Amino acid sequence: MHALRSPAMRPLSLSPTSIPSRPLCFRFLALSLPLFPNSRSPSKYLARTTVGPRFCVRSCGSVKAKPSSELRKREGGGSEPDEKLRALRELFSKPGIGIDAYIVPSQDAHQSEFIAECYTRRAYISGFAGSAGTAVVTKDKAALWTDGRYFLQAENQLNSSWILMRAGNLGVPTTSEWLNDVLAPGCRIGIDPFLFSSDAAEELKEAIAKKNHELVLLYNINLVDEVWKERPKPPNKPVRIHDLKFAGLDVASKLSFLRAEFIDAGASAIIISMLDEVAWLLNLRGSDVPHSPVVYAYLLVKTDTAELFVDSSKITPEVMDHLKNAGVQLRPYNKILSEIENLAKQGGNLWLDTTSVNAAIVNIYKSACDKYLNKNSKARVQDFIGRSAIPSGVYRASPISLAKAVKNDAELQGMRNSHLRDAAALAHFWVWLEEEINKGAKLTEVEVADKLLEFRSMQDGFIDTSFDTISASGANGAVIHYKPEPGSCRVLDVEKLFLLDSGAQYVDGTTDITRTVHFGEPTPRQKECFTRVLQGHIALDQAVFPENTPGFVLDAFARSSLWKIGLDYRHGTFHSLAGWLFGVLMRILSSAASFSFLVIGTGHGVGAALNVHEGPQSISFRYGNLTSLQRGMVVSNEPGYYEDHAFGIRIENLLSVVEINTPNHFGGIGYLGFEKLTFVPIQTKMVDSALLSSVEINWLNDYHAQVWEKVSPLLDGSARQWLWDNTRPLPIQ
Amino acid sequence: MHALRSPAMRPLSLSPTSIPSRPLCFRFLALSLPLFPNSRSPSKYLARTTVGPRFCVRSCGSVKAKPSSELRKREGGGSEPDEKLRALRELFSKPGIGIDAYIVPSQDAHQSEFIAECYTRRAYISGFAGSAGTAVVTKDKAALWTDGRYFLQAENQLNSSWILMRAGNLGVPTTSEWLNDVLAPGCRIGIDPFLFSSDAAEELKEAIAKKNHELVLLYNINLVDEVWKERPKPPNKPVRIHDLKFAGLDVASKLSFLRAEFIDAGASAIIISMLDEVAWLLNLRGSDVPHSPVVYAYLLVKTDTAELFVDSSKITPEVMDHLKNAGVQLRPYNKILSEIENLAKQGGNLWLDTTSVNAAIVNIYKSACDKYLNKNSKARVQDFIGRSAIPSGVYRASPISLAKAVKNDAELQGMRNSHLRDAAALAHFWVWLEEEINKGAKLTEVEVADKLLEFRSMQDGFIDTSFDTISASGANGAVIHYKPEPGSCRVLDVEKLFLLDSGAQYVDGTTDITRTVHFGEPTPRQKECFTRVLQGHIALDQAVFPENTPGFVLDAFARSSLWKIGLDYRHGTFHSLAGWLFGVLMRILSSAASFSFLVIGTGHGVGAALNVHEGPQSISFRYGNLTSLQRGMVVSNEPGYYEDHAFGIRIENLLSVVEINTPNHFGGIGYLGFEKLTFVPIQTKMVDSALLSSVEINWLNDYHAQVWEKVSPLLDGSARQWLWDNTRPLPIQ
Repeated sequence: MHALRSPAMRPLSLSPTSIPSRPLCFRFLALSLPLFPNSRSPSKYLARTTVGPRFCVRSCGSVKAKPSSELRKREGGGSEPDEKLRALRELFSKPGIGIDAYIVPSQDAHQSEFIAECYTRRAYISGFAGSAGTAVVTKDKAALWTDGRYFLQAENQLNSSWILMRAGNLGVPTTSEWLNDVLAPGCRIGIDPFLFSSDAAEELKEAIAKKNHELVLLYNINLVDEVWKERPKPPNKPVRIHDLKFAGLDVASKLSFLRAEFIDAGASAIIISMLDEVAWLLNLRGSDVPHSPVVYAYLLVKTDTAELFVDSSKITPEVMDHLKNAGVQLRPYNKILSEIENLAKQGGNLWLDTTSVNAAIVNIYKSACDKYLNKNSKARVQDFIGRSAIPSGVYRASPISLAKAVKNDAELQGMRNSHLRDAAALAHFWVWLEEEINKGAKLTEVEVADKLLEFRSMQDGFIDTSFDTISASGANGAVIHYKPEPGSCRVLDVEKLFLLDSGAQYVDGTTDITRTVHFGEPTPRQKECFTRVLQGHIALDQAVFPENTPGFVLDAFARSSLWKIGLDYRHGTFHSLAGWLFGVLMRILSSAASFSFLVIGTGHGVGAALNVHEGPQSISFRYGNLTSLQRGMVVSNEPGYYEDHAFGIRIENLLSVVEINTPNHFGGIGYLGFEKLTFVPIQTKMVDSALLSSVEINWLNDYHAQVWEKVSPLLDGSARQWLWDNTRPLPIQ
Repeated sequence: MHALRSPAMRPLSLSPTSIPSRPLCFRFLALSLPLFPNSRSPSKYLARTTVGPRFCVRSCGSVKAKPSSELRKREGGGSEPDEKLRALRELFSKPGIGIDAYIVPSQDAHQSEFIAECYTRRAYISGFAGSAGTAVVTKDKAALWTDGRYFLQAENQLNSSWILMRAGNLGVPTTSEWLNDVLAPGCRIGIDPFLFSSDAAEELKEAIAKKNHELVLLYNINLVDEVWKERPKPPNKPVRIHDLKFAGLDVASKLSFLRAEFIDAGASAIIISMLDEVAWLLNLRGSDVPHSPVVYAYLLVKTDTAELFVDSSKITPEVMDHLKNAGVQLRPYNKILSEIENLAKQGGNLWLDTTSVNAAIVNIYKSACDKYLNKNSKARVQDFIGRSAIPSGVYRASPISLAKAVKNDAELQGMRNSHLRDAAALAHFWVWLEEEINKGAKLTEVEVADKLLEFRSMQDGFIDTSFDTISASGANGAVIHYKPEPGSCRVLDVEKLFLLDSGAQYVDGTTDITRTVHFGEPTPRQKECFTRVLQGHIALDQAVFPENTPGFVLDAFARSSLWKIGLDYRHGTFHSLAGWLFGVLMRILSSAASFSFLVIGTGHGVGAALNVHEGPQSISFRYGNLTSLQRGMVVSNEPGYYEDHAFGIRIENLLSVVEINTPNHFGGIGYLGFEKLTFVPIQTKMVDSALLSSVEINWLNDYHAQVWEKVSPLLDGSARQWLWDNTRPLPIQ
């Protein structure tokens, strides 16, 4: 899968730049909705943060609004009645709320890429089901921001109460610009602080402060949940242990590492809120969201204790023992804020990654620290030197991101093994598909994806797809974020290219592979483009580079052959306005450490039996990400070429970073390269071998020899024959 | 020439990081000394900036020093008497000076790469003649910072009064750290503010403020000049007009462009202090410094006038007419400060590039603006909205840097023509050298460089070398900043590699070329390394890339072939401490726009009949420089490999950036590549053709065919025969 929306990404809700237009990279912007069940603890936090309703004096449409505001209200409200909006707006003026607008982002409380259905609040309130979008509701207006991928879908799904904001288009304001425009100065704008990273909330607060608006953090109530009839229940499937033979490192060792890290940083505790980080640290896996084997939880690690905030109904006795053995205690998921507050009261210095930890947690901690400082007299404070006695936050990127990205031997072996089983499933799939096409069957993109899932699910240890399969025929292949839908998708065409980007979660590893094939006779143009993409794929695969090299240094290798004839992938969009805006976003994002692995290029990190998109490394033409590629990291190698309204080509393998035994070690350092994890034939029919050097032909032949050697033992019958037929060497010229 | 010390670089005087150790890039750190003649205007500025002497109360060794300081003085002063230091220190306590320490950097007042002899103050006061270094003199100590290239030379040249500070070595303090350590708090540290860029002075001021030291800007006196007996006179050779047929654009047009730029930025004037920028803007050339055809001058451009501050004795009647025609008035060089002050008084908003404009100018302007604000009552100030009525600086990178880097057709044609004449000179040289070596002549590196100069000076339009020739036999080739000296240099050895990096200034262009040859039989190791360097050279030469690509994106192409066997150039040093420190420096420098073109990699910009090193573009593995490569820019392509104590290899051509007529234009943009400017054979004896692809062999053969075609018409006799012999194609395998 070639592109990711970072699991740690900030809500894409603050500006048009934050919702990139179609040719950009975030294919997997989550269908997201925030976190909390309705059963929140009473108004403890509410009382602190929203000190009673405070209505705007003019034009906010509140009880004492002046005529001008009434006028505005009538003007703006020429839409059909919308019951959800009406119910939502009714809450605006309730005691303890008192807001003039409410922002509903796509996120859950953990900045997850894939989220549980009960948290798809933006989709519920707006009716727009696309994965990326932000809804903003004022007392008389409702607007939804989304990007070019979804303009048509949003037009269809939004009712007339909603204004569609085509993010990235010229003149379209950001959410905060729009709020600053439509609200009279000095209004109160509400958010659920669990659904914004602390940094995103701060940015929003600053933006709306220009018009003296106040950002109101509604800790105890999510207004959409209040009006959501028949809201799905939060996921409650049991958590499972990720076997040590796959994890390679026990929980106690991981926690020791983590404690050493935070002590070294001057902290006495750390809050882990990214779901894959919690799963990795505790060697646990869950089924709370599609595609990612994670469980909704927070982990609070102190020097002597570790507390897992999770719905205890998901914890089996076996998991309970596992956690006990590692010294991890269970706490209710919704007690996280009170525990954070206690920590501050006890003088704990908390490590917070404000790029991913939500604003609720960060603000509660800061407020509690401030209180502590006020309580203790100046004399008392002056008694202490240094941080230890006065609670204060340590604001840094999570130390787990890199530790998780650098796989140990057991994790790598699991990745290798699962990739071979995945390759066997794909061989079964491809022989089936070719036979069906040859028989003249009319198969839709969705049917094909479903069949692929069927073959995969027959493999040992299969758990789930690792993302929504991109099964794209003809021009759909050029829609980089394409997701076929049952009613509207295409039938595969023997005369068109077919791009298939898919992956799976196995008990021991995660896969992600793209192949592009033609069932008939490709055009010379298609062959040339495919061959140049393949040359880029080979160049990156074969790269050797010194330690401490960031991924972006290698990105040009993957593009060079396309550049020679004036082609490129995605990069071109940066010469459009949307691209420029997106560039601005990327710069903003990449200034925050944990976002800097966002891929809009050639490769992304992949978790070991975890999220298919992870950081911190990436291989991209954006140079904001300075994370060097390190032994044990897994990255995708997926150059492509996308010709609008015609075809799309992508060739994707996963690679692990390995030490290369070079004859020299200039600089006294190691030199690194890649080991392939993916072993699935590349269709030689698509290759114009006249364009390839002998080195490149050798690469392809050697790869196919390895595919045969590694995967054929897992196959028999027609699949084995298919593998044989598709791994025959090209003649060397 | 493969590496540069930016002409706009900050004084390398503030920290050990600022004097990189040997394997780093700044080969041409200037032998520099500041600017002003002794005849400064009276104590007008002095009075303002140093309000009478203010001595340290304790331990600074002043009149009323306490015993502890006396002790310190005795302890530290166990050195032989040094007359220069004694005389210098005597000035410390003079009225209007009153300082406890004095810093003498290598720079002139224009941050020039090459400086006039009269400004080599650091060399004079310390006795250390290396090009990079900073001298710091307190009342009882004297210390000199230099980098690894010069440790031996400095040990030999410094007398026992001096402490050698081996910058880059573990535990060696920066100049400011050292001053903070050896001086009691609250001392006064003097500098000549002309010799520090404004940014460098600010940085120094902050660093010493930690110990409450005050930075004293001595505008009216350079203390070294005061004690310098028989100081050389400032250069006074006549200025010449750079013919419009070479410049391509008249002065009036350039000034119009400049005015549009500064008006657009909200300024009403700009001060140009980089000497090559002044020369480029006015189509003038001079002979004030070695290697760079520039004249010491400042240019102050306002909306309606332009004033050139220059020693009028250099201005011929012809030049005077040329300037008059362009509306440029002459002013005495040393009236720059008073004119800047007048400008502020008149409410002028001055564009200042604080990375290159010296602290004297910037501080005078700021002080004058402050005065203006104080004079005008608050009521008056409130009358005005916006900047126009209240003078304030516009602090931005100079707009000339990029305009100068993008050559017009006339400049490019001059570059092409001069390169062919240079190639003819090199053919004469190489045939002479090979004959001499074959005859068994014992030629030193210096003799060879002298002979090369002789051949070049016979070419039409020859003016000067463009830098000190690097003529390096055997292991000297691995000394990246090697400069052969008559007494100590090697004799060329038929059994060793010979690296020759040289260039020339012609009336129409500037050249810079490196070739590495063997007179006998190279070892397989040498051939492999040479061939891999050549592969990098070819890969960069042949690169095609989209518009808006910064140079660093291409850097990996030049290294890839070396990386495959664990080799690299210079990059390796970054894994040492010195390298790390240097990396820190580079990050600091690259944060300032006009320093970001510093090369420590594969290519640097080259001026058209101007400085051999210019920005803002570069091709380097450092990604701080985001300047994109643009049509008309000239860059060097000079990958290399340096094996310590054994040999050095570098292959360098100059290239101009051109539009490539690609069959596609993905993204609706242009695709760029390179046109070669340099046409001199590459020794095929050094090539292991088994390592080359057929594409690479074709490149070499095609290049040699072009060399023959373009250069043979300029040659006859043995040189023509040599060119024929050395442009024969390699067999394609």
